[in-house]
Amino acid sequence: MQAIEQKVRESFGRQAFMATLGAQLTAAGPGTVEIRIPFSDKLTQQNGFLHAGVITSILDSACGYAALSVAPEKAEVLSVEFKVNLLAPAVGESFIARAQVKRAGKTLTVCMADAFALNQGNEKLVAMMQATIMNMIPQPHHV
Amino acid sequence: MQAIEQKVRESFGRQAFMATLGAQLTAAGPGTVEIRIPFSDKLTQQNGFLHAGVITSILDSACGYAALSVAPEKAEVLSVEFKVNLLAPAVGESFIARAQVKRAGKTLTVCMADAFALNQGNEKLVAMMQATIMNMIPQPHHV
Amino acid sequence: MQAIEQKVRESFGRQAFMATLGAQLTAAGPGTVEIRIPFSDKLTQQNGFLHAGVITSILDSACGYAALSVAPEKAEVLSVEFKVNLLAPAVGESFIARAQVKRAGKTLTVCMADAFALNQGNEKLVAMMQATIMNMIPQPHHV
Amino acid sequence: MQAIEQKVRESFGRQAFMATLGAQLTAAGPGTVEIRIPFSDKLTQQNGFLHAGVITSILDSACGYAALSVAPEKAEVLSVEFKVNLLAPAVGESFIARAQVKRAGKTLTVCMADAFALNQGNEKLVAMMQATIMNMIPQPHHV
Repeated sequence: MQAIEQKVRESFGRQAFMATLGAQLTAAGPGTVEIRIPFSDKLTQQNGFLHAGVITSILDSACGYAALSVAPEKAEVLSVEFKVNLLAPAVGESFIARAQVKRAGKTLTVCMADAFALNQGNEKLVAMMQATIMNMIPQPHHV
Repeated sequence: MQAIEQKVRESFGRQAFMATLGAQLTAAGPGTVEIRIPFSDKLTQQNGFLHAGVITSILDSACGYAALSVAPEKAEVLSVEFKVNLLAPAVGESFIARAQVKRAGKTLTVCMADAFALNQGNEKLVAMMQATIMNMIPQPHHV
Repeated sequence: MQAIEQKVRESFGRQAFMATLGAQLTAAGPGTVEIRIPFSDKLTQQNGFLHAGVITSILDSACGYAALSVAPEKAEVLSVEFKVNLLAPAVGESFIARAQVKRAGKTLTVCMADAFALNQGNEKLVAMMQATIMNMIPQPHHV
Repeated sequence: MQAIEQKVRESFGRQAFMATLGAQLTAAGPGTVEIRIPFSDKLTQQNGFLHAGVITSILDSACGYAALSVAPEKAEVLSVEFKVNLLAPAVGESFIARAQVKRAGKTLTVCMADAFALNQGNEKLVAMMQATIMNMIPQPHHV
């Protein structure tokens, strides 16, 4: 269990884009991951809301790491595809992506994730993702 | 036609996140938009490839502006939802998102977009988006 | 509340395809709908499992009617788009689609729905849908 | 090439649901498949249009068989997920689903497909699918 969280945190730490966004991994358990990001005016679309691509990025990473948390020990993960519905403008002080595994197969894992805008302690659902992630077992190099 | 391109460029210029990514609007015609982004190690996932969220961000903006280019004059646009398939690792010197309108309705516009990795002049398809965009007519304020 | 259920049941009764599939509306409340279908060897794909299109059909109708149940009184609904993940082969005595509204807007409603295979009283999750539905207010005809 | 078409036709012939819908496989080449279906009032939704699930069913089968046409010889295919945009009411004398492979991998194949309504010789785009299909290599049974 601690090993899982450590594996997830170590990989998250290597995602330079998450640092660029200011994103933090705020929870990681077996099959669930939470990522948070503060609002920044460097991350906005034309109306000053958070760009849908930013919300999608933390949803995608949250789904990927939820999948990793239940993958075989040596597996890495790769996003195959995802679909996002944007339910409300991403207006808030910060944003939370919460992912959970719905089905973990040998090769493919299906996750869903919700994104919330946080305002004065209130969470509002702003986006939903349904995603497919693939387990990749690194192949030994033949000498 | 020039008016369309100007409207698209003006709105793109207000997307702070596109500047943060280093993205440029490289073409905008009626129903088609192209956005390019150079590789940067600030935009990577754990293996050093471009993060899927980055590719998705330029695909989303490209679809949104393709929709805007065919929207009524006073309309703004809002992404309703999109779906992305990631076909190959996003490895390249730069990346191109090309969007086109498939159907423009009164309220909703459907676009598709492809993302390519560019290496030594060769384009490789790395992702595909299918997206729904909504026209928003700003309401006059009643005095 | 009874009016909602009646509106949903009346419309479901006009979906000839649901009758062709042998589908039944087994529950309809505000924002939630359940549809069931028995296995039939007329509905199979090449391996004898229920065709993904059948599962999708009852998920789509369940989402549409969940949206209708919270729509304005005179509104009709239309599916804009949906995405389905198929999690396991659809093997079972019967199948259940359960939809719920995640966000009801003035124009668009977003629903999610799960499909389960039922075997000797045990439910197994076999598919998940995320869907966008549009409210259509029939326009009065001018004389 | 003839072997491919034969493999596709043989599997299509085992999809009882396609026969139930009245669907026919009207073309099958390497990476492309076409399926047609006549209108029937047994396949309608509440307004008398073809049910979105019917359109989705022929799009799904078309994508699956396009994937099968480029899969390894002994592989079977399984739909992992798909997303459909419904662009216009499915009103017509008959309907055509045309699928093509966008990327064929070792394990996963990504296809897109368009559905058209046919009226007096005119084709109108009514739906678009983006789909992921998995190759399944049947395992030898150990004696």
